[in-house]
Amino acid sequence: MKINREQLQSEIDALALITEAEPPAVTRVLFSEADLRGRAFVKNLCLEAGLVLRADAVGNIFARWEGADKNLPAVATGSHIDAIPNAGKYDGVVGVLGAIEAVRALQKSGFQPERSIELVVFTAEEPTRFGIGCLGSRLLSGVVSPEKAARFKDRDGKNLEFWRKAGGCKGRLNSVRLPKNFYFAFVELHIEQGPVLEKENISIGVVEKIAAPSSLRLQLIGTGGHAGAVLMPARHDAGLAGAEIALAVEKAALTSGSADTVGTTGIFRIEPGAVNSVPCRANLEIDLRDTQAATRDSALKQIEGAARAICRRRGVRLEMERVNVDPPAVGDAALVKTLSEICRAQHISCKKMTSRAYHDSLFMAQICPTTMIFIPCRKGYSHRPDEYSSPGQIAKGVYVLAQMLAVAARD
Amino acid sequence: MKINREQLQSEIDALALITEAEPPAVTRVLFSEADLRGRAFVKNLCLEAGLVLRADAVGNIFARWEGADKNLPAVATGSHIDAIPNAGKYDGVVGVLGAIEAVRALQKSGFQPERSIELVVFTAEEPTRFGIGCLGSRLLSGVVSPEKAARFKDRDGKNLEFWRKAGGCKGRLNSVRLPKNFYFAFVELHIEQGPVLEKENISIGVVEKIAAPSSLRLQLIGTGGHAGAVLMPARHDAGLAGAEIALAVEKAALTSGSADTVGTTGIFRIEPGAVNSVPCRANLEIDLRDTQAATRDSALKQIEGAARAICRRRGVRLEMERVNVDPPAVGDAALVKTLSEICRAQHISCKKMTSRAYHDSLFMAQICPTTMIFIPCRKGYSHRPDEYSSPGQIAKGVYVLAQMLAVAARD
Repeated sequence: MKINREQLQSEIDALALITEAEPPAVTRVLFSEADLRGRAFVKNLCLEAGLVLRADAVGNIFARWEGADKNLPAVATGSHIDAIPNAGKYDGVVGVLGAIEAVRALQKSGFQPERSIELVVFTAEEPTRFGIGCLGSRLLSGVVSPEKAARFKDRDGKNLEFWRKAGGCKGRLNSVRLPKNFYFAFVELHIEQGPVLEKENISIGVVEKIAAPSSLRLQLIGTGGHAGAVLMPARHDAGLAGAEIALAVEKAALTSGSADTVGTTGIFRIEPGAVNSVPCRANLEIDLRDTQAATRDSALKQIEGAARAICRRRGVRLEMERVNVDPPAVGDAALVKTLSEICRAQHISCKKMTSRAYHDSLFMAQICPTTMIFIPCRKGYSHRPDEYSSPGQIAKGVYVLAQMLAVAARD
Repeated sequence: MKINREQLQSEIDALALITEAEPPAVTRVLFSEADLRGRAFVKNLCLEAGLVLRADAVGNIFARWEGADKNLPAVATGSHIDAIPNAGKYDGVVGVLGAIEAVRALQKSGFQPERSIELVVFTAEEPTRFGIGCLGSRLLSGVVSPEKAARFKDRDGKNLEFWRKAGGCKGRLNSVRLPKNFYFAFVELHIEQGPVLEKENISIGVVEKIAAPSSLRLQLIGTGGHAGAVLMPARHDAGLAGAEIALAVEKAALTSGSADTVGTTGIFRIEPGAVNSVPCRANLEIDLRDTQAATRDSALKQIEGAARAICRRRGVRLEMERVNVDPPAVGDAALVKTLSEICRAQHISCKKMTSRAYHDSLFMAQICPTTMIFIPCRKGYSHRPDEYSSPGQIAKGVYVLAQMLAVAARD
């Protein structure tokens, strides 16, 4: 079986040019024009590979290579193609275009699947539009209810109902959820988004565990006024309350007792945003994760307590919401073993590891045996334009994925 | 002489509806459609009052009531109509529409000026577009050179040349500067933008001094990355460096030794601005003022030193620019005396005071004797939609301004 790394690379490069940003930066926000054009690009490749397409009511795309026994649950793979502002071209994309290449390689090798093999392109793995990640896989797995999701709103007040109609989605949100064990297994190929594999010169990471993610959304309502006229003791500056909270997030992560705790204030907006005006409002979004749910939960409480104390002291009103508090996921032991055996048999170096980034796999693990295949990326860079994995590194990942799909489709 | 407070209020209300924001919020950014419509509204009122209009190459508007002796330097008054995002309807506007009403009241009373009386509507007193305030009066007074001003750029990279042409300005920037003593005097009517007059129940503030303003612009360039994957010790988070700097600004203002020092981080933007991405860049704009230039300069140095130390410690690259560092201005003693005498004669309560906000008067003081007339505003609120002065408070200010113009125009 041969992976066509040149074709795959040219497809990755072509998809990267479908962007709202200036190349090489990639921005594809859910149901933006670039996202819709990216989806069309992927669907076209699936049709060229002879796959059967369907889409659900939230825009998750399913491309099926039908197996000999249509009654068996399919083995699934997939990832996402949406991208945060000014991101790179590999995050998610390698797991989508790589899966198409894996299917093509199996087809060319003459392989005939017993179970169907299904590629899933998940809607909005990135939280850009609604502030919550993995929208498609949360709905597929029932982790979020259709009623709650229907109320998600973007910064302009447009809700999911508006956007999924703008995106051409048909049907009702309550038709998206899949039953438990709808799939025989789910395996996602992805760049590591961390430096471990590159540093240790290892080709494949087999994901045993996915860190437990959570996020908070804060609205700080202070008192505005003229920057010259309002003396310091009279101020209730929402921006400064936000600054203190961002530093409290860092402190909570640094002092959690676990080196794995990471806390980030990735969104920090102030109003009115004029140099000569005291900020009257601040909007913060905070991301907090750990491999251990208990450690993460304790840091989360510490941050919430600090935010309340800071706002109380500064006379700033606080509205705080837990957007998501997800448990960690554990890779299916049998799948992890199979992947390790495939690597060993093919003399491909591999190691078991934890995913610190979260993925649609975190939610697919709720409904079927799941694991992930990681490949190295340069310096661990991700969510930036200089994100990079080499064609050779990608080809190894695609090769292992194809072997895994072949084993599962005959299992 | 009678001030028509109803007409003036209806004009203030009408101008407030010319806004880019949702009323009652007023936003009029330099040469935006709202700013251009606001200018047309004011020019129309000037023409109705029989004034002779001209405009200079940066869009400063001059409306002249010609005196009997055209060879005498005119007495000038005026203010601005541009408004920061989500501001109120009185800042600047009271000094423009109030001056028109003062002229109309003098006309109706049968007054004949010996010197011409000239209303100036200054371009971009607010720093919204280019990050520097008092653009029009800086150019008029020669405090900024036409060459430097031509290079001012907005966030989209569009420079003053682009905007002044979009705004329909004719002529070259080097024609804007006025010679020293072009005006006999300049008197600006303005809301206090502070709580003193309201608290002390005083009708008129006579400005003896204007605080020395300054501003800094900082670009912080850190290292982005995935919020899950980059562990805390490996981070160079530009947003957290910005948070520390904003708190250092507050500290420098609080510990300057002067209760008059005010420091504000009014602009704080981070990139890429995604909840799951470590901020790679932050853009801060800082406003720092004091009535004493020496105290302000010392706090400015403290902030600059803190910013450098914070960025060095965090491994974040710092680009820092002093946008403006202006001296304080002193109100002309003779004008201050005349204003106080007018108030005393009319049994209008008044007090001498310092302006903590800066104004076009700060720069007009460079070329002619200058002072300001303050009126109370509710709770000292300004730069916010609930900014308010009552029709009666405004009418008293307009009355004192009209008397002052009458005295000066016969002087």
